[in-house]
Amino acid sequence: MGNSFGHLFRVTTFGESHGGGVGVVIDGCPPKLNIDVSEIQAELDRRRPGQSKISTPRKETDTCEILSGVFEGKTLGTPIAMLVRNKDTRPQDYSEMATTYRPSHADATYDAKYGLRNWQGGGRSSARETIGRVAAGAIAKKILKQVVGIEIVGYVKRIKDLEGIVDPETVNLEQVESNIVRCPDHECAPKMIELIEQIRNQGDSIGGVVECVARNVPKGLGSPVFDKLEADLAKGVMSLPASKGFEIGSGFAGTLLSGSEHNDEYYTDEQGTIRTVSNRSGGIQGGISNGENIILRVAFKPTATIRKEQRTVTREGEETMLAAKGRHDPCVLPRAVPMVEAMVALVMCDHLLRHQGQCGTLKPED
Amino acid sequence: MGNSFGHLFRVTTFGESHGGGVGVVIDGCPPKLNIDVSEIQAELDRRRPGQSKISTPRKETDTCEILSGVFEGKTLGTPIAMLVRNKDTRPQDYSEMATTYRPSHADATYDAKYGLRNWQGGGRSSARETIGRVAAGAIAKKILKQVVGIEIVGYVKRIKDLEGIVDPETVNLEQVESNIVRCPDHECAPKMIELIEQIRNQGDSIGGVVECVARNVPKGLGSPVFDKLEADLAKGVMSLPASKGFEIGSGFAGTLLSGSEHNDEYYTDEQGTIRTVSNRSGGIQGGISNGENIILRVAFKPTATIRKEQRTVTREGEETMLAAKGRHDPCVLPRAVPMVEAMVALVMCDHLLRHQGQCGTLKPED
Amino acid sequence: MGNSFGHLFRVTTFGESHGGGVGVVIDGCPPKLNIDVSEIQAELDRRRPGQSKISTPRKETDTCEILSGVFEGKTLGTPIAMLVRNKDTRPQDYSEMATTYRPSHADATYDAKYGLRNWQGGGRSSARETIGRVAAGAIAKKILKQVVGIEIVGYVKRIKDLEGIVDPETVNLEQVESNIVRCPDHECAPKMIELIEQIRNQGDSIGGVVECVARNVPKGLGSPVFDKLEADLAKGVMSLPASKGFEIGSGFAGTLLSGSEHNDEYYTDEQGTIRTVSNRSGGIQGGISNGENIILRVAFKPTATIRKEQRTVTREGEETMLAAKGRHDPCVLPRAVPMVEAMVALVMCDHLLRHQGQCGTLKPED
Amino acid sequence: MGNSFGHLFRVTTFGESHGGGVGVVIDGCPPKLNIDVSEIQAELDRRRPGQSKISTPRKETDTCEILSGVFEGKTLGTPIAMLVRNKDTRPQDYSEMATTYRPSHADATYDAKYGLRNWQGGGRSSARETIGRVAAGAIAKKILKQVVGIEIVGYVKRIKDLEGIVDPETVNLEQVESNIVRCPDHECAPKMIELIEQIRNQGDSIGGVVECVARNVPKGLGSPVFDKLEADLAKGVMSLPASKGFEIGSGFAGTLLSGSEHNDEYYTDEQGTIRTVSNRSGGIQGGISNGENIILRVAFKPTATIRKEQRTVTREGEETMLAAKGRHDPCVLPRAVPMVEAMVALVMCDHLLRHQGQCGTLKPED
Repeated sequence: MGNSFGHLFRVTTFGESHGGGVGVVIDGCPPKLNIDVSEIQAELDRRRPGQSKISTPRKETDTCEILSGVFEGKTLGTPIAMLVRNKDTRPQDYSEMATTYRPSHADATYDAKYGLRNWQGGGRSSARETIGRVAAGAIAKKILKQVVGIEIVGYVKRIKDLEGIVDPETVNLEQVESNIVRCPDHECAPKMIELIEQIRNQGDSIGGVVECVARNVPKGLGSPVFDKLEADLAKGVMSLPASKGFEIGSGFAGTLLSGSEHNDEYYTDEQGTIRTVSNRSGGIQGGISNGENIILRVAFKPTATIRKEQRTVTREGEETMLAAKGRHDPCVLPRAVPMVEAMVALVMCDHLLRHQGQCGTLKPED
Repeated sequence: MGNSFGHLFRVTTFGESHGGGVGVVIDGCPPKLNIDVSEIQAELDRRRPGQSKISTPRKETDTCEILSGVFEGKTLGTPIAMLVRNKDTRPQDYSEMATTYRPSHADATYDAKYGLRNWQGGGRSSARETIGRVAAGAIAKKILKQVVGIEIVGYVKRIKDLEGIVDPETVNLEQVESNIVRCPDHECAPKMIELIEQIRNQGDSIGGVVECVARNVPKGLGSPVFDKLEADLAKGVMSLPASKGFEIGSGFAGTLLSGSEHNDEYYTDEQGTIRTVSNRSGGIQGGISNGENIILRVAFKPTATIRKEQRTVTREGEETMLAAKGRHDPCVLPRAVPMVEAMVALVMCDHLLRHQGQCGTLKPED
Repeated sequence: MGNSFGHLFRVTTFGESHGGGVGVVIDGCPPKLNIDVSEIQAELDRRRPGQSKISTPRKETDTCEILSGVFEGKTLGTPIAMLVRNKDTRPQDYSEMATTYRPSHADATYDAKYGLRNWQGGGRSSARETIGRVAAGAIAKKILKQVVGIEIVGYVKRIKDLEGIVDPETVNLEQVESNIVRCPDHECAPKMIELIEQIRNQGDSIGGVVECVARNVPKGLGSPVFDKLEADLAKGVMSLPASKGFEIGSGFAGTLLSGSEHNDEYYTDEQGTIRTVSNRSGGIQGGISNGENIILRVAFKPTATIRKEQRTVTREGEETMLAAKGRHDPCVLPRAVPMVEAMVALVMCDHLLRHQGQCGTLKPED
Repeated sequence: MGNSFGHLFRVTTFGESHGGGVGVVIDGCPPKLNIDVSEIQAELDRRRPGQSKISTPRKETDTCEILSGVFEGKTLGTPIAMLVRNKDTRPQDYSEMATTYRPSHADATYDAKYGLRNWQGGGRSSARETIGRVAAGAIAKKILKQVVGIEIVGYVKRIKDLEGIVDPETVNLEQVESNIVRCPDHECAPKMIELIEQIRNQGDSIGGVVECVARNVPKGLGSPVFDKLEADLAKGVMSLPASKGFEIGSGFAGTLLSGSEHNDEYYTDEQGTIRTVSNRSGGIQGGISNGENIILRVAFKPTATIRKEQRTVTREGEETMLAAKGRHDPCVLPRAVPMVEAMVALVMCDHLLRHQGQCGTLKPED
């Protein structure tokens, strides 16, 4: 249970870190969309391990095969299944984890829930699971762009206490990809990279904050009550490994303002569109998009798997010490950027189709 | 769409602020549970307007009628429908809102999405919608308590910059209910109340943070991947009106620590149970409960509807000024406490039944 | 579980035969649809007990109250909750059923599943549950008619071995409602009525077949694979009380033909539309509507509750005899007609919105 | 949309007849179940083409690869993905179908819905899609057998007008598999085979009826109202290609009986279990299993694709004649048997987990 996401644009991921492979099935994709596997691969390349000196050294090309749902370069409207084989697997590196729990990792809780787990490389709890999300997100992004012009840009906002200055109104993919830490503040980025390297050399890890903006969002997406747009965005990004917090618009800082300071006053722009002067709402009011940029932030904790020795227990509850082997990122933030973008795209695409389904049917004159 | 929540313990709310009433249908409640309507009413009383000098003066007893699903004091396993009639309705107070949008409220986005709205008292976007959640949450709480002993306690942690000191390990309902702001820090609570009154007198509003703890949670609840326990909790509370942020365990502050500082080391306690020394994970690892207390925080913005005059537009886009009439809370926090508890209870109860469904079937010897 | 139906146009029913009432919540209804409660009441009147000399004498007006989701005569896009109170309840008539199981009724299986049941009037297994379906179906019918011109007509095709001759191409509501048995064959109908009266006088019951046609169905509704249009129609009508069989198009008789006899050959009509010469497919090919009339049949068994004495057991397993008291129909067919129409409408409306959601988004030039 | 089935034991199939392959993802499988790929392959071998002289000559071994969810021979509780590659593909055989619609096939409706289709071998509407169902069904069968001892046996009951005599109480897999037409009546089977060969030689096709029994079903499975066990069974089998009708228990023939003839009277057997004397209910009353054998029948039409020349149209609506090439079965019935069994197993397994989820939680003393 729990391996599917979305209501009309519905993705189901599968796969463990070690084993046949990981992948995704998308059900509900609109037909006749032009799909080139290279577009999907480009997103996977942003996520893949071994992409830079500050990511895990595991060597995977993460080559994506489209198994179904695309014919002569176009989506069929039928399920799109995509598969990425696991190649550079080293189960022997993880043999200690078969019996010893890594602190703050999912080893112990999987055992508690299921009574067993695939301990090789973290099994299902590995961040390799997000390959399916990123592949599906690439298609969602394309739909959003093509149908309504929505563009989604994520970036590293903060590494530990190093915070970049970024303008969400204008930041673009090229700026984000211009450095390996994916922070488009060119002064801050080198310091972040240096900090990550330093921490890795200590056998330790760090966390930070990813910010993501969706621009050109039409008014009216999202549902009131439980499936508020911000609620589904929160669920989407809080389902990513290592996430600990979520903010939309003003977030926690907004609680320090009074209503008269916080409210986004309305005006009518030159095109006659109703707009807000400020955007503390983060583009969503009452769970529905208001046409302003959607801005959210996600807190990622420091990677749980570290080389430093820690106190822990075995499956049998015997106390022991663990200095984790295996390959892992000292900081998940750079690779988390495409993951956050993917989840935002999946939520937006699902709500676009849902809106079309409920509100696109009756003719204006009805 | 979007008015249902949960997978096995599934609630659907209905109703607008003004009109026949608001309510909920629960589908999937276990049978043979003892239900007394007074238990549900007690929770609704914590949520209802007019409960104290710092809440909206709208006078509603919010009397709950159980329409179905309970027979001779026991749940039947069939849908439990509950209805609360709207009584103290004053549509005339809201006539200005029929044409003028309140800043940072859902007036404009509902119009954008649906092309019309019930403008009386906020219609479906009114916090009256949460009556159904709180009524359902009362039943979820009872199941959690009875089946596995889980108890859920929420409280006001912060009002603007006034932060209370509360021990989540021990705080109880009586302490929370001992003052009208629902902050169990007896020194801080009077200051919070004073601040709220002062802000209200200025025709303004304020926000803050609710913290909530779930204790006695068994290991193994939650699903990996999309339906991680923290993801569903995030969605649940971020679907409450006025919420802007969510944290589990260490939250955003956790991003300032290194992995070796942040990780929760394991030990085995005297009963032979595997435990964690610290609880920065907030009781959840890899989306699955680890048996420690689940601790989360929700940021609520200042109430959007204020008496102070603000710049806004009409439905036709004409710019105007609005000083909102109608009755509203200067600070939603005290009444948000039972709402947060309800959403946490709904998530936990759903995952309890889901876990039982997937993992409770095969016999140990299989 | 299991009290909701549909994916985008989603209905949830609640209520027992005796108790506060029965009703429905519709989530996902398109906004701005004109709704008059009298239209819904008209459908409920076709379903209500006591409507004729061949139906149960229970006296219920089944008056429908719209609790939410409609404002100034238009749907809001928010949940539409409708409630019908139970009035003419006589629990004492059913006291024997508290302990004694009616053969072929749900008394024993509810006890087996839930460990208890509301034995008054059949509780949740009463056909009163279908009030919610019929009320929701009335709205679904209106959407189908208004958006794409679909009309749905059901009628009694056969009572026991008395089969009417009806032309599904032309039959209309007036013809169906012209007699109390709802068979538009004016020669056969009086014989059917006579047979039902005769059977009732014997303390016995009979069954038969309802046929239903959906006309003006656009091409392209339905999903391949699991949610084929005929699969959802089958589920919809097989979820009605007392149904034992389902056929689409040629049905079981079609298995006696060869492929060359059974296949519906194509031609192009004068408007340039691709049509089929015959319609053994019943308007659906590969799970998707082909633009021809959708024709289906449902077998309803004889009513289980009869006055004739039968061999049975008590809750404790003691063997006994039962001659059922209480009020019941000697033949469910006449009242099943609006129920079948409602389920067909709910399926069609849901698939209309789903089609719009998935396939209505990309612009033709994409 | 529409490519998933089940609520707790949820399968999603993907794939077209020609292209990378077909497969399935199962989400919600209980953990720690022993799985041997040979058990799944055995079911696929019953479904695969080319298995006998009366099936399509397409040569596929349909070799199943388990991609995820199984570790060291046991299910992990995580998604089980299974893939079967397409091997013996001959797109050129279908080139005529790129432009010409086969009567009573899904060619035209896919085009109407999606605006395009994979015309090679029927694309998604090919019966190859059922590979995923049969693979998932093999696992569902194993769970049902192991947890509660349920066994599911399907067989050909009728080919055109040749009806076999089979005792559902005792029929077993060996008897079914003892001949290539899968009719355990040894006198009738050779006649059926002869008829199929004769029809194929004429370039034509025939249909018939599959019957299926589920034995050792515990009381209490199924949900009242929409998800009645017979409703979900009806949906499951009516979603199979070429199905036109469904019956549970007495089916359409039951409508010819009076209530006193049709009702299943109760008695208490020697073990003190409440049983029914007859089983016209087909093992289900009020949507819930009563502990008797579940018996259902499915009507399958004659295969639509035939060599005989038929009148049809092209995509552009031009009238033409078609004598279909490509490889196809003259009668789907023998290969439909494992498909029906699979759908019955998927429904039963899902309801088993759902029942455990809702009703398995509260302790008896509660």
